[in-house]
Amino acid sequence: MTRQQLIQQIREKQSFLCVGLDPDIKKIPQCVIDECKAELEDGEEYDESLALQLFNQYIIDATAPYCVAYKPNLAFYESLGAMGLVAYEETVSYIRENYPTHFIIADAKRGDIGNTSKMYAKTFFEEYDVDALTVAPYMGEDSVTPFLGYDDKWVILLALTSNKGSHDFQLTEDAQGERLFEKVLKKSQEWGDANNMMYVVGATQGQMFEDIRKIVPNHFLLVPGVGAQGGSLEEVCKYGMNSDCGLLVNSSRGIIYASGGDDFAEVAAQKAQELQQQMDIELKKAGL
Amino acid sequence: MTRQQLIQQIREKQSFLCVGLDPDIKKIPQCVIDECKAELEDGEEYDESLALQLFNQYIIDATAPYCVAYKPNLAFYESLGAMGLVAYEETVSYIRENYPTHFIIADAKRGDIGNTSKMYAKTFFEEYDVDALTVAPYMGEDSVTPFLGYDDKWVILLALTSNKGSHDFQLTEDAQGERLFEKVLKKSQEWGDANNMMYVVGATQGQMFEDIRKIVPNHFLLVPGVGAQGGSLEEVCKYGMNSDCGLLVNSSRGIIYASGGDDFAEVAAQKAQELQQQMDIELKKAGL
Repeated sequence: MTRQQLIQQIREKQSFLCVGLDPDIKKIPQCVIDECKAELEDGEEYDESLALQLFNQYIIDATAPYCVAYKPNLAFYESLGAMGLVAYEETVSYIRENYPTHFIIADAKRGDIGNTSKMYAKTFFEEYDVDALTVAPYMGEDSVTPFLGYDDKWVILLALTSNKGSHDFQLTEDAQGERLFEKVLKKSQEWGDANNMMYVVGATQGQMFEDIRKIVPNHFLLVPGVGAQGGSLEEVCKYGMNSDCGLLVNSSRGIIYASGGDDFAEVAAQKAQELQQQMDIELKKAGL
Repeated sequence: MTRQQLIQQIREKQSFLCVGLDPDIKKIPQCVIDECKAELEDGEEYDESLALQLFNQYIIDATAPYCVAYKPNLAFYESLGAMGLVAYEETVSYIRENYPTHFIIADAKRGDIGNTSKMYAKTFFEEYDVDALTVAPYMGEDSVTPFLGYDDKWVILLALTSNKGSHDFQLTEDAQGERLFEKVLKKSQEWGDANNMMYVVGATQGQMFEDIRKIVPNHFLLVPGVGAQGGSLEEVCKYGMNSDCGLLVNSSRGIIYASGGDDFAEVAAQKAQELQQQMDIELKKAGL
């Protein structure tokens, strides 16, 4: 998906919501598991990955009107082994087939020597055909650039993450007072631009968005950490929004596990709609 | 596997060789593919992942006498989707069943917020039951510590990698002149110790091993980059070996693709043996 297509989607839906599809088998409502078991055909055995797939389909159908992107995190699929990967592939296919204008982010935080990153790029952009992949910057240029050779595909580079550990290294200042995340933002602009690169910036980082916008005024930022992790949507918009919106704000647990009962999909839809309505207000404030 | 068990293996085999199992389907010898196809049972279809598995088994059988560890890199398995993961699982099981004293490293360079790293830890240490996992440090403490809660399992944290991009961020000096990789080495000692943590240091980094040994004199270092990437075993040992050896030196392409012909396994064994013989000399030099 191109930058213009993404902006178009945000304007049409008045939403920059990304729904994190992080299905933990321990938290999937019993009704989904029961339905999976009831639908097994003769000789077919129940596998937890089937519950993951069905859960995701319900969540996707419930939230699609309110969001512009989905972000399945590979950790939750890999935890079920090869069958988990099938659930991942099926989830991506389900979105592609039913909601072709939604942006799909593989949250995998990959990054390795050039030769190996090239394999990862092939996997995510050719095999799975997702729009974007999160990448860790620690290994530098040749670990990132193999992901940038694909038309209309995106690298989303970790810059300033939402977790407590972000303070351990990302805020380290060099002799000139430049912090590591700022160095990542600057250096990586030699590798890609606002049409094929975004950055992860945690919603918990508040006013730091101002500093970030000085370095990357035009890039999209993927912002996790609203909801369960405590970030404020209003603050993110105040300091982080640009004239194209420039934000994809992710919520995972706050939507997909808002109810563990039979009404889980309805409640997920409500929670997504509530966020969309807040986003609508923020977009209007910015004249978008 | 415990530190003492690993040291014991190194002494018995007079080797600290780790063989990187990075099977690229494009480079697998034709004879392996032909054998896979010939062995298909009625109704069974050929899948590239079967060739990966068989190739690995040949390489493992050929090199096991000369190495103490295997390091499959997930990128090469994921590139074949869910079936690739099956090949990965089968490879790990094959080593566990046939060579139970070999140390298995999942080279995956994972790292995410605490909640998600916990899922990855469960996958690699409970499901796959590997001994160690490579982890990227960028996200800090809570992205690493979930991997440290398992008995006899190891985190191998990226410190100073073998690739050109290692210069982009890892060498950045803070106001006190401390480089980022040094900060990673120091800070991470608050999270784990020499019994559950190792560090990745590229063989291409030469004399930097001296600086690294000042900070982590006792830890094991996983050293990729000998062979195809140009690092020197002698130099690594000169500056990096400690009184327990403290090194696992990895070679992937230099062994597994040393021949693309029918003799690939024999030649892989020769190349592994050559490295083991050089290691034997280095160990003897150090009185081990």
